[in-house]
Amino acid sequence: MKLLLTAFDPFGGESANAAQEAVRLVSDTVGEVRVVKLTVPTVFGRSVAAVAAAIEAERPDAVLCVGQAGGRAGLTPERVAINVDDASIPDNEGNQPMDRPIVPGGPAAYFSTLPVKAMVRAIRDAGLPASVSNSAGTFVCNHLMYGVLHLLHERYPGVRGGFLHVPLSPAQASRLPAGAPSLPVEDMAAGIEAAIGAIAAYERDIAAAEGALN
Amino acid sequence: MKLLLTAFDPFGGESANAAQEAVRLVSDTVGEVRVVKLTVPTVFGRSVAAVAAAIEAERPDAVLCVGQAGGRAGLTPERVAINVDDASIPDNEGNQPMDRPIVPGGPAAYFSTLPVKAMVRAIRDAGLPASVSNSAGTFVCNHLMYGVLHLLHERYPGVRGGFLHVPLSPAQASRLPAGAPSLPVEDMAAGIEAAIGAIAAYERDIAAAEGALN
Amino acid sequence: MKLLLTAFDPFGGESANAAQEAVRLVSDTVGEVRVVKLTVPTVFGRSVAAVAAAIEAERPDAVLCVGQAGGRAGLTPERVAINVDDASIPDNEGNQPMDRPIVPGGPAAYFSTLPVKAMVRAIRDAGLPASVSNSAGTFVCNHLMYGVLHLLHERYPGVRGGFLHVPLSPAQASRLPAGAPSLPVEDMAAGIEAAIGAIAAYERDIAAAEGALN
Amino acid sequence: MKLLLTAFDPFGGESANAAQEAVRLVSDTVGEVRVVKLTVPTVFGRSVAAVAAAIEAERPDAVLCVGQAGGRAGLTPERVAINVDDASIPDNEGNQPMDRPIVPGGPAAYFSTLPVKAMVRAIRDAGLPASVSNSAGTFVCNHLMYGVLHLLHERYPGVRGGFLHVPLSPAQASRLPAGAPSLPVEDMAAGIEAAIGAIAAYERDIAAAEGALN
Repeated sequence: MKLLLTAFDPFGGESANAAQEAVRLVSDTVGEVRVVKLTVPTVFGRSVAAVAAAIEAERPDAVLCVGQAGGRAGLTPERVAINVDDASIPDNEGNQPMDRPIVPGGPAAYFSTLPVKAMVRAIRDAGLPASVSNSAGTFVCNHLMYGVLHLLHERYPGVRGGFLHVPLSPAQASRLPAGAPSLPVEDMAAGIEAAIGAIAAYERDIAAAEGALN
Repeated sequence: MKLLLTAFDPFGGESANAAQEAVRLVSDTVGEVRVVKLTVPTVFGRSVAAVAAAIEAERPDAVLCVGQAGGRAGLTPERVAINVDDASIPDNEGNQPMDRPIVPGGPAAYFSTLPVKAMVRAIRDAGLPASVSNSAGTFVCNHLMYGVLHLLHERYPGVRGGFLHVPLSPAQASRLPAGAPSLPVEDMAAGIEAAIGAIAAYERDIAAAEGALN
Repeated sequence: MKLLLTAFDPFGGESANAAQEAVRLVSDTVGEVRVVKLTVPTVFGRSVAAVAAAIEAERPDAVLCVGQAGGRAGLTPERVAINVDDASIPDNEGNQPMDRPIVPGGPAAYFSTLPVKAMVRAIRDAGLPASVSNSAGTFVCNHLMYGVLHLLHERYPGVRGGFLHVPLSPAQASRLPAGAPSLPVEDMAAGIEAAIGAIAAYERDIAAAEGALN
Repeated sequence: MKLLLTAFDPFGGESANAAQEAVRLVSDTVGEVRVVKLTVPTVFGRSVAAVAAAIEAERPDAVLCVGQAGGRAGLTPERVAINVDDASIPDNEGNQPMDRPIVPGGPAAYFSTLPVKAMVRAIRDAGLPASVSNSAGTFVCNHLMYGVLHLLHERYPGVRGGFLHVPLSPAQASRLPAGAPSLPVEDMAAGIEAAIGAIAAYERDIAAAEGALN
């Protein structure tokens, strides 16, 4: 099995991106899975194009995109991506789309085709906090997740895909006067490897009470 | 213009539901809008059936469903409903579906057809905290929002619909040892009326930077 | 019984102070208690002098100072004031003391001589969220609480005193993009009146498990 | 220089205590500082007695007590301990004192005699989140901090002392359904070593705007 693992470059004026640093530390081989890594620009449109090119070149069996979510305390596999770009800040090339469909005429949403609850359980079993997230936001993370799932649906129907958000690193949190939850990028890497193991082990997701009241 | 305004009965072992109490206080006439109210059971399936019957009987121009979201500090119009029931607690009749589509074969999601950003602005102009929410959860609130939007899409294409979450009431928060944000139901009612005014005034939503990074 | 009830003027660049607005709405007579009100400047030193002058003029039986605490969800009687000024922003006259004793040579702290747990219970019985707070911060609120308790201890030993923090108003929270918990100033006024009732009813505090683990 | 470094055993029904695990990993020598470690029972009274015996036996130059604070995201040196035991849960021997002075007739509070702002800066310079805390709660952590500072003040006037709270470990957070901020115990150990370095380097604290509004 081959898995394409992507992360974004730094955005929002920061010099580092925890997801990118964590992905760098992930092993090239996780169990039976060969991991191919890619850094993508935090840019609407170009991020999807970069992953599309890598999928075409690498022909992976699964795609896992990773992004940084300041404020979250654990690793959070995303359940769903929605067909809207609605940016509250500019991306790395100055684009700030508002209420614009990612794919005009495309489905309102795509569910992750990765086993999000099995990933959560595997990350917890690795001793790290995790939960299912029901929103990837409306910025470039959601954009990439939607764009990749749309591409897989249209052109590579046998390839599974999804998104995982990670917290800030302790170094990032140490620079915020009000503080924020964080995890070392080494732990994130271990959590990502646990999630990859679950992706390899579970074609269908497990049953678990991980829903959200609101 | 006629608007159907719904709220749920109490759930999760509580004796009151802030959304229900707030909806009771909303005027029967808001500007040019005649408001018809309905309490629906906090039950998968039956909640949608109750609203469907009321839509058929009342033939409203718009439907606004209101629900209680413990932990939120403001009034939050929901942007999107997703096609999944994933309950972490039982509903009022003991149902606890997990990872089950609301409408098998239905679209992955429906976007609100109400002007969520105009509603947020109107609620803030009324002096109350508000923001766009990108997830209505995976319990009965999301279920009803999806079910109603699906019904409107299939059978009443000219009728707009959507969902609004409100915080706990101060009385509810006063019984929680760890505390929680709250707003009086009278203020929620004023906020709901402001939102109804925006629904009447805006067929299309306004442009505003209200997106979420994650 | 006569109670001196104080609030601060707006600070931190805001045009309103929720505590001040709430105090304005408190009745001049609460049960058997005659309430005398005073607005004090959000200024190190001068705030204490203003209350000292009012105590000398009015000779109250108790002093309750009220302040605004952005971020808190309920009304929070303060247990203790500590002998340090440590300002992270300037006060309304530009003073920004750091790690300076309020009263050089004074005790490290004064405990409230008001019945904080009875106040919490009374506010909750009035249907509003409340809890005991173990820190009034290190800005002007803590400064005033310490200064008044020191004055009462030194010069008016029979007079009880303490401090109560209140949340932001909904209008203030509506202007914060990230949102914040809030309560209407009318509810705060009702909560303050409930607290005054408890102050009148309880010379000694009640027993209740309201401690904090950390 | 010799420093006595203490941690508590697990409490509140948990099988581990992050502070204890972190202290185990701290080097026995940090720069010029020789570190002597002690685990103390999470019990009112006996915890102070255990540290008192170790102080008498070891004659350290400084005492740093470390405790676990679920919910906090960073390492937080405590500014002050207050003279009250007010337990919301029983300690490890079933004691649950309420509103009882730790030392009858003792001062209302003791300020840390460790350089809390220098410690915060050193921990941040080590790439970890940190901030000054103005309340150690009213359970055994505050009890021990007060008890040790009282003892040092009365019997060992040249010995400095204070308290540091640490977050949960990722493993602890992974078992909480609602999640919580966490840091690996290895990082906590590095942060504690950074704090010890600051304790050795600064007899008097540095000036820094680390105060709290409320």
